[in-house]
Amino acid sequence: MIVLFTDFGLAGPYTGQMKAVLRREAPQTEIIDLFADAPAGNPRASAYPLATYAEWFPPATIFLCVVDPGVGGQGAPLMVEAHPCWFVGPENGLFELVLRRAQNTRCYEITWHPPKLSASFHGRDLFAPAAAMLARAERPPARARDAIRESAWPDDLAEIVYIDHYGNAMTGLRGRAVPAGATLILGDKTRVIHAATFSVVPEGTVFWYENSNGLVEIAVNRRRAADQLHLVVGSTLTIEN
Amino acid sequence: MIVLFTDFGLAGPYTGQMKAVLRREAPQTEIIDLFADAPAGNPRASAYPLATYAEWFPPATIFLCVVDPGVGGQGAPLMVEAHPCWFVGPENGLFELVLRRAQNTRCYEITWHPPKLSASFHGRDLFAPAAAMLARAERPPARARDAIRESAWPDDLAEIVYIDHYGNAMTGLRGRAVPAGATLILGDKTRVIHAATFSVVPEGTVFWYENSNGLVEIAVNRRRAADQLHLVVGSTLTIEN
Amino acid sequence: MIVLFTDFGLAGPYTGQMKAVLRREAPQTEIIDLFADAPAGNPRASAYPLATYAEWFPPATIFLCVVDPGVGGQGAPLMVEAHPCWFVGPENGLFELVLRRAQNTRCYEITWHPPKLSASFHGRDLFAPAAAMLARAERPPARARDAIRESAWPDDLAEIVYIDHYGNAMTGLRGRAVPAGATLILGDKTRVIHAATFSVVPEGTVFWYENSNGLVEIAVNRRRAADQLHLVVGSTLTIEN
Repeated sequence: MIVLFTDFGLAGPYTGQMKAVLRREAPQTEIIDLFADAPAGNPRASAYPLATYAEWFPPATIFLCVVDPGVGGQGAPLMVEAHPCWFVGPENGLFELVLRRAQNTRCYEITWHPPKLSASFHGRDLFAPAAAMLARAERPPARARDAIRESAWPDDLAEIVYIDHYGNAMTGLRGRAVPAGATLILGDKTRVIHAATFSVVPEGTVFWYENSNGLVEIAVNRRRAADQLHLVVGSTLTIEN
Repeated sequence: MIVLFTDFGLAGPYTGQMKAVLRREAPQTEIIDLFADAPAGNPRASAYPLATYAEWFPPATIFLCVVDPGVGGQGAPLMVEAHPCWFVGPENGLFELVLRRAQNTRCYEITWHPPKLSASFHGRDLFAPAAAMLARAERPPARARDAIRESAWPDDLAEIVYIDHYGNAMTGLRGRAVPAGATLILGDKTRVIHAATFSVVPEGTVFWYENSNGLVEIAVNRRRAADQLHLVVGSTLTIEN
Repeated sequence: MIVLFTDFGLAGPYTGQMKAVLRREAPQTEIIDLFADAPAGNPRASAYPLATYAEWFPPATIFLCVVDPGVGGQGAPLMVEAHPCWFVGPENGLFELVLRRAQNTRCYEITWHPPKLSASFHGRDLFAPAAAMLARAERPPARARDAIRESAWPDDLAEIVYIDHYGNAMTGLRGRAVPAGATLILGDKTRVIHAATFSVVPEGTVFWYENSNGLVEIAVNRRRAADQLHLVVGSTLTIEN
């Protein structure tokens, strides 16, 4: 299974062309769209949901990941073996939390050169063919080396990293990183109490819960939390002591 | 064929994870995205297009339906056999019109318990595996019982239930429920005449037509009707006598 | 491979129903979503990216194209053989640039009548079954004739034809139609310099580049160009001499 994690959107031309490559190069492999709306050009905010959501997928999943502010830039093409899965994408921190959390990892710079490489669409021209090779149990030409690390990034990020379709605001905090029942404080001092899920609080209540993949999310029962609380990707919060 | 009818959106993590389950549990079965933007958390508005659009699909289709304001709440997991199709989803009225319109229906509460059930993503953890069992011609553990009915809901709903990508405003009225050529009156007294389709009226004309699935839609030729007429899901209208 | 090029959106009911037809009628054929957000009801703006993006796909691709302001109108259903691919869709100029650029083309009016044809959804009822026949290497009943041509449309269109998910503004100009390094002038006199790609200019720089399919795009490094420059589909520009 190849899982797509990008900021490409689904409707426009990017995801479709990338899938056309995958279909041609690895026709037997299922393709799943996980995120097509990862925080645009923001590998730091993307790294936290990527590492957390990846844990849900079965062994041998290949994650094809493109969130890259430096379109056409210097970041090397990486492939990371975080046993038992593969991650393919640009070297810009996107795999920082995958590398930090996995027990055994090996990192490779992809040295394979596609016959034709556009300046701005490495997802289609380089990363998708490399992921397809892995799906065919081939190994793209690559050399093992350590990845550049983002050691300043925290293990859990007390920021909003994604606003979902319902307006719920996902943070980069794992539930386990927040003391049971702790209150969160938003930048405007709004206090956010804990609840197990939506249905246990009255309509309109601001609360946080551990989502179905283990990340802390801020929500308002039957309302759009991000709109009501003016939350955007990058909004910070603190955990009340 | 498994048809998805949800308010999840396609780009974010929900539909993708649900499909990953379906691919694993029922790899031979086609998956079709019918609506991923059903009225969010609004089973009443969703019930009308669901019942109407479902009629278009071939026998043996399995509809996997999640529109649920009571995330993590009390509604039981249902599966409804509305010959010759199956509907899987929460007990919150979403299947009311399917039950009312189908000739022969059987309703079951799913008693199968997944090995791991999150508080907020029953679509992935419970409904998708149950739909996959049906797709494999297995029957999830379940007990037959009558569904809780929403007898106060009308047979045809004189409200906007969906705004499409073009700004056309779909109602919950079947074309057959409106006298031929009748005029509709919006809440602000705007009169909406009938036309067979877009191309038979001048540009800018407000009209209604029976859409390709049999529901009454309000449109403006070459304009975004919902924007121009300030229509939202829940806007009411009346049929002029 | 059947490639979809429409203004339908992916989340609502249109693309899903069309795919359900394709899955039933041509179950062995891959389906790729290329554009589901082509300029709504705008075949002129759509014709340029269609012709350009189509060149990237392999021989024998079938393009199923629906961008049609005249919903239910007079335009005949066409199928165009632009060796070595097929294009199926309405006669409204959408294939003008395909016809103009391909070496050998044959044009046919589809005379096949589906058993049931809705007034407003020919994509599902007529074009999708016709595309599926081609995918099965059958030929839908059709008669050869010349297509109505849009001879007034330029070979390259100095207008914005698409705003992508990042806010980049795609034009209908091929890179080869612009002198190397020329400056573009927007309607408000903003001067847009050339750059090879995003990463070679400072953050916030307005520039144009030849995108990965060969079209000129206007971008701002790490910003949303369309928002910043107030560009919409139809905004015009000139090439500085």
